[in-house]
Amino acid sequence: MPVSKQVYLFGTSATDGRAELVDLLGGKGANLAEMALMGLPVPPGFTITTEVCNAYYDNGRTLPDSLRADVEAALLEIGAKAGRRFGDKDNPLLVSVRSGSRASMPGMMDTILDLGLNDETVVGLARHADDERFAYDSYRRFIQMYSDVVLGVDHGLFEDILENFKNLNGLSLDTDLSADHWKEIVDEFKEAVTTELDEPFPQDTGAQLWGAIGAVFGSWDNARAKIYRRLHNIPDDWGTAVNVQAMVFGNMGETSATGVAFTRNPSTGEKAIFGEYLINAQGEDVVAGIRTPQPLAKTDPDAVDQSETLMSNEGTSLQEAMPHAFEELARVFEMLERHYRDMQDIEFTIERGHLWMLQTRAGKRTVEAGLKIAIDMANEGVLSRPEALLRIDPAGLDHLLHPTIDPDATKDLLTRGLPASPGAASGEIVLTADAAEEANAQGRSVILVRSETSPEDIHGMHAAVGILTARGGMTSHAAVVARGMGRPCVSGASALRIDLAAQTLIIGHETFKAGDIITIDGGTGEVIRGRVPMRQPELSGAFGTLMEWADAYRRLGVRANADTPRDAQQARDFGAEGIGLCRTEHMFFEVERILAVREMILASTEQGRRAALQKLLPMQRDDFIKLFEIMAGKPVTIRLLDPPLHEFLPHQVHEQEAVAKELGIDVTAIRRRVVELSEVNPMLGFRGCRIAILYPEIVEMQSRAIFEAALEAGRRSGQPVTPEVMLPLVIDRQEFDLVAAVIRDTAADVAREQGASVDFQIGTMVEFPRAVLKAGEIAAGENGAAFFSFGTNDLTQTTMGLSRDDAAPILASYSAHGIFAADPFITIDLEGVGELIKIGVERGRKVKNDLKIGICGEHGGDPKSVRFCHETGLTYVSCSPFRVPIARLAAAQAVLLEEMQT
Amino acid sequence: MPVSKQVYLFGTSATDGRAELVDLLGGKGANLAEMALMGLPVPPGFTITTEVCNAYYDNGRTLPDSLRADVEAALLEIGAKAGRRFGDKDNPLLVSVRSGSRASMPGMMDTILDLGLNDETVVGLARHADDERFAYDSYRRFIQMYSDVVLGVDHGLFEDILENFKNLNGLSLDTDLSADHWKEIVDEFKEAVTTELDEPFPQDTGAQLWGAIGAVFGSWDNARAKIYRRLHNIPDDWGTAVNVQAMVFGNMGETSATGVAFTRNPSTGEKAIFGEYLINAQGEDVVAGIRTPQPLAKTDPDAVDQSETLMSNEGTSLQEAMPHAFEELARVFEMLERHYRDMQDIEFTIERGHLWMLQTRAGKRTVEAGLKIAIDMANEGVLSRPEALLRIDPAGLDHLLHPTIDPDATKDLLTRGLPASPGAASGEIVLTADAAEEANAQGRSVILVRSETSPEDIHGMHAAVGILTARGGMTSHAAVVARGMGRPCVSGASALRIDLAAQTLIIGHETFKAGDIITIDGGTGEVIRGRVPMRQPELSGAFGTLMEWADAYRRLGVRANADTPRDAQQARDFGAEGIGLCRTEHMFFEVERILAVREMILASTEQGRRAALQKLLPMQRDDFIKLFEIMAGKPVTIRLLDPPLHEFLPHQVHEQEAVAKELGIDVTAIRRRVVELSEVNPMLGFRGCRIAILYPEIVEMQSRAIFEAALEAGRRSGQPVTPEVMLPLVIDRQEFDLVAAVIRDTAADVAREQGASVDFQIGTMVEFPRAVLKAGEIAAGENGAAFFSFGTNDLTQTTMGLSRDDAAPILASYSAHGIFAADPFITIDLEGVGELIKIGVERGRKVKNDLKIGICGEHGGDPKSVRFCHETGLTYVSCSPFRVPIARLAAAQAVLLEEMQT
Repeated sequence: MPVSKQVYLFGTSATDGRAELVDLLGGKGANLAEMALMGLPVPPGFTITTEVCNAYYDNGRTLPDSLRADVEAALLEIGAKAGRRFGDKDNPLLVSVRSGSRASMPGMMDTILDLGLNDETVVGLARHADDERFAYDSYRRFIQMYSDVVLGVDHGLFEDILENFKNLNGLSLDTDLSADHWKEIVDEFKEAVTTELDEPFPQDTGAQLWGAIGAVFGSWDNARAKIYRRLHNIPDDWGTAVNVQAMVFGNMGETSATGVAFTRNPSTGEKAIFGEYLINAQGEDVVAGIRTPQPLAKTDPDAVDQSETLMSNEGTSLQEAMPHAFEELARVFEMLERHYRDMQDIEFTIERGHLWMLQTRAGKRTVEAGLKIAIDMANEGVLSRPEALLRIDPAGLDHLLHPTIDPDATKDLLTRGLPASPGAASGEIVLTADAAEEANAQGRSVILVRSETSPEDIHGMHAAVGILTARGGMTSHAAVVARGMGRPCVSGASALRIDLAAQTLIIGHETFKAGDIITIDGGTGEVIRGRVPMRQPELSGAFGTLMEWADAYRRLGVRANADTPRDAQQARDFGAEGIGLCRTEHMFFEVERILAVREMILASTEQGRRAALQKLLPMQRDDFIKLFEIMAGKPVTIRLLDPPLHEFLPHQVHEQEAVAKELGIDVTAIRRRVVELSEVNPMLGFRGCRIAILYPEIVEMQSRAIFEAALEAGRRSGQPVTPEVMLPLVIDRQEFDLVAAVIRDTAADVAREQGASVDFQIGTMVEFPRAVLKAGEIAAGENGAAFFSFGTNDLTQTTMGLSRDDAAPILASYSAHGIFAADPFITIDLEGVGELIKIGVERGRKVKNDLKIGICGEHGGDPKSVRFCHETGLTYVSCSPFRVPIARLAAAQAVLLEEMQT
Repeated sequence: MPVSKQVYLFGTSATDGRAELVDLLGGKGANLAEMALMGLPVPPGFTITTEVCNAYYDNGRTLPDSLRADVEAALLEIGAKAGRRFGDKDNPLLVSVRSGSRASMPGMMDTILDLGLNDETVVGLARHADDERFAYDSYRRFIQMYSDVVLGVDHGLFEDILENFKNLNGLSLDTDLSADHWKEIVDEFKEAVTTELDEPFPQDTGAQLWGAIGAVFGSWDNARAKIYRRLHNIPDDWGTAVNVQAMVFGNMGETSATGVAFTRNPSTGEKAIFGEYLINAQGEDVVAGIRTPQPLAKTDPDAVDQSETLMSNEGTSLQEAMPHAFEELARVFEMLERHYRDMQDIEFTIERGHLWMLQTRAGKRTVEAGLKIAIDMANEGVLSRPEALLRIDPAGLDHLLHPTIDPDATKDLLTRGLPASPGAASGEIVLTADAAEEANAQGRSVILVRSETSPEDIHGMHAAVGILTARGGMTSHAAVVARGMGRPCVSGASALRIDLAAQTLIIGHETFKAGDIITIDGGTGEVIRGRVPMRQPELSGAFGTLMEWADAYRRLGVRANADTPRDAQQARDFGAEGIGLCRTEHMFFEVERILAVREMILASTEQGRRAALQKLLPMQRDDFIKLFEIMAGKPVTIRLLDPPLHEFLPHQVHEQEAVAKELGIDVTAIRRRVVELSEVNPMLGFRGCRIAILYPEIVEMQSRAIFEAALEAGRRSGQPVTPEVMLPLVIDRQEFDLVAAVIRDTAADVAREQGASVDFQIGTMVEFPRAVLKAGEIAAGENGAAFFSFGTNDLTQTTMGLSRDDAAPILASYSAHGIFAADPFITIDLEGVGELIKIGVERGRKVKNDLKIGICGEHGGDPKSVRFCHETGLTYVSCSPFRVPIARLAAAQAVLLEEMQT
């Protein structure tokens, strides 16, 4: 088997890689190479490819023999560039060994710093750096990290030794320790390793390196990495690369520093350097959120909201502390943004005043920021409008549309932390990830409160509606993950103390119990007692521009599912072009109506049913008048009564007795009817047009209400209304004809009575596979269906034989086995249900080539499903009002993606 | 609009019609014409076409004007032939006016005899016949019938007058009345009509005729005709013809007679003249079953079973009474059978020694008789074998296979009647059709007991498992209808008396209450107390020949669904070529197993489940050993556990407590699990391979049982067993692969342990539309499904969105509206489900062109569905053992029908 190139150099005399090789080199390695090619200051290093990772697993966790020579040669190259030599006791080259996969998996895999130190090289390092304290501090860090990651020694052991040492010597901070202290600590650490493992800490630097490389490859398969991949749909066979890079030191005294930054504000999208740093520290110190870092840029005293320019807001800024390095950094940021045409998330180290770039990658950002950045970059001329549109994940827009805290609300502010991820949420306090998951499974909303989060907490963060931490900055684990998940997060709220044993949360002087309700505002960092009134978001600014651009590209119509005037208004505000589904039964559940509905269902004669329907008619008509007025000039699709009738009947004994009393009938009559209407599989039972066929008087009432309302609304608004009457559950042309005849007769009656007629259409839901197969017949001819609306929920249930109400445990088990790419109730099952939709469209359009076809149901607001609908030639999608903007953007992207393919 | 020919003459100087014109002339008219063409003695007459009937309804029940002249001309032709004139007072022509539709609808529509009599023509008739008594008897019959049918006067009125007259005059039988008596009766009848209608009985013979024609056309739309059409799927727009025919008289004294006959025994198929007659009577007297008629042929003293040669078994035979007429009749029968190539049901009248043929048609027969007649006629050379095979309705075979009374059973014989329709049945006594229907709806088996039945009883006959009447012969209403329906019937059991008011049945001296159990044997005429042990039918003779011929033609395989050794043996006996579906879960319900099954379901760990499965393994293995031994040399398809697990758990509190005690666990654990497993739509829930994927240990146990059993059965029988392991509910290739891997691993384990391996195949059910769509993927490659079995029940449920358990009220409503041609759970919905099956076959065979494909489920034994399966290229159908012969015949017919089309 020919061996492909296993090791790619960067920042040495040559650079082998580049950004495009991300699959082979991982994100970190590819971008380090790219930065080196750009001429940026990158410490020399090399990347071992992801192919080697796969080979490692294919061979039972064994590295290929051929790798050794390549790595040794590469080490010499790095040394040549750095002017040091790996393992050299006089002037040793130290390296970092880091993972780097194709997709960013922050904190999921292992990293080792300062590798190459042993009892001899530490002396050379001290001498060469002229800083013995730095050298032994580095050595103890290395022993601790290496022992933990490679040798499997619990890191708590080392922390205990250090803590003990400090106590014995009356020392408090790490900075209080001298070089000799660190020497003693190093001895104790080594001793502990020997005791623990029955063999000494490895002094052979080559062995150290191979141990580290193996450990990093091995960490691809650790539990938290696997969970992360599952959550983010990252295939197992992508593998990770390993980056071995010359160490540079942010901990070489007061002219050294390390920091992380975003080229724009990842929370708001504002164009401003946004980052934090620590003087005399190593990179991991910032990310771990253990010390609270200082801001890069000077505070802008004019900023309305500090969060717009600052991450941390305490301490001296880099701009003030090291103006030269700051300026160079700012220049690098500008270059990187122009080069990558995106906002970047970077890591850097300043070693004795010299800037080194350690990482660049597309920066994670809030949806809000992502939106603003894309629009701004298009306006700056960096991106085209289509590119800007494609940059935004439509699913995220949802988040923007969700409530924030009403500014007029009275808030009992408990404390304040960092505004780590925007959005507001109220919920019960839970103190562990497991508790969060458990509560979520029971349908309770919870705020996960932790001192700081770690990758082990991910499942709990997923289960929570919001996250609150006591420690950590804006780039802490909690902040990064919460933004990725779209969860509101307040981090670094230092007034918090958590007592896990007592299950209490102490905020200042007040004690809360797990289960107490709090509210967090991830946009302001506020932590508030109890629930707080929320407010609808603003839909102007970048959002408005985005929607305007999206509408200019998209061809697919977007309607909303709306049953009430409030929904309808919401839908219009969000840009819906009509109502694609008004579920009339929802109108039946209102308190003053349900009694008449029950009277109708309990009636044993047509006459009895008609009497009850007569009471419902004016209410239903009023509903429609309001809907038609709000949607004036836009189409409104009204679906006739769909759900099983027993849903309207009371099932509890005391309710049955109350209804019997109100209706003046015997309670046994109610019970008998409940039993009569109960079904083994109600999804597949007496509902939809099956009700209409047995009780045509219901159709009569509903269509009368529609037509009378259309005339009245037309008179009021001056705009004629064209209602689209939709039949549910049709699977046969005869069903359609029978019900349509009742509707047409009623329309004629109303026209005769009022001397004015309504333009209307009759169409049908396509919900069951048979409806798909018979689509041609159902649509054929002048009296056939004038439109189709795919009911993808029911179509999914029947095509897959999977009850939505019962699917959760099945889909959980299937997801664990990797069966089905996505939850079929969220994204249309393209291979199954999708094929049926295509068949239905084809057969319908064959007999009526301009047939209007939409879908309604949850899928109408899912971006992948919207793309499918566009590609399949549907006329429109209809979704919940809040998902209308998502659908509008997804529909535009569908056009752009299609154009890219052709 | 051009008027087509409205009136077709027969038996006059020319005959316009012929048998092929049955659609236009109805069965009676077409066959009268055909007999006239054959030169048989047919009284002259004419037929008004079914087109006129449709015109009559299209024009609001008005006859076309143009008809009058045609009818008048035709009447003259009849008169010319008969030597009489309609309305002539000296020598009047009398006519009968009868309905006659395309399909036989016995007794459903109206008939009028002796039309043309009035106060003047009756005198001429008396003179011409030289029989005043006959003339006035005819007149009073005519008044009664015409008043009832055309004028709407209740016929009870006339019966009361006659009864009264007899009482006043001390007379008992009709034959006791003299001509003068009848004259008085005629006067009283006319007076009654005048009182009733405020106008006299019509004396204008023309008006009489037009009234009668209108009434007969009108009777097409009466309630009982409409019910009959619905029950027999006769379209409303077929219409009826009207036959007007010269009267001949069976009531012209002792040399006259009237009778009905079958050319072969309609109960057994035996080749023998089989009929009954009444001296000096009109035809309606025989059919109505009011007087018990006499046999046509002499009793054969050697006949083992009198029913084989006799209908009635009392009185003088026609052969003895009128040997000349009998011989002529026998000659006519022979001619008719040869001509029509089928057994005929005929009506005849002998007028003063002269034979007249009034009707011939294919005779209704029992399934047994139909079978024997077809086979005999093929052996006689009258039919070819394919023709014989096509003569037999496969659905009827079911009937032959059903139990008869065990000859060794102790029977408490209550009485004996005529063996009117074969088969035995036990059930509760019910005394009205409504009670029968009600009991049937409650799932109770009933025997409908009536004095005599009438068309108003049809719904009750349908609902009953058997029919018993006190009066009427072998061609009485009860007998004819019961044979058509395949219901056992004993008629004319004269020892019966029914007291409807008291709801009692008196048999001899003993009184039974409604609800008491009796048994009837329609093959012997026995009525027996209580339930009686039944016996399986013989499958030799004509039945065996039929199956042999069918197998020679059919290409579709026929397997059986069998879960137990008993079923498997039954299946083999009925000619099944293997087991197409063994539902392993049925084995789990047996008393000694259900506890282990419950233990398995209640276990909260894999270990707990494995412990319980370990107990089930030997039992399941033993089941399979027995099945494999019985089916030695034939394929056996075993389906892995399919139903929702909650079906195995106890749902009643006391059961739950008992199980908790037996298993030594807390009852709340059981309740919790029951709740946990309960589902909204269990059909679409956690079942099938979904269970296998979550609990692979169940698959392991079941496949181990299968493979170990196959090896053991192979050792015992010396014939290697090739089990086909079938996965239920697969809709995705990944599901198939996951479960198949467990099966293959287990096979390898067993092979290793036993040092011998089993040849096996793994295939899948295709039950949900997604499985159809993914059929190609699921079958692809060496490790793909080796066979498919369409689960048409579930496929119907999901394709149509119709739960089988809940469908009854929906399908009842749909049937009333004519939606769906057949019950989709009986006959495959060809347009919907059928198309999906075709797609599945096509996709499966595209990747594996020899893919074995079957169906299992109820449809596999439905003849229409079997034909569809043949046409779609399936490999086999699998059905319940009792339906195997049906499937074998239907599969042969499918081949023959296909050949006829090409």
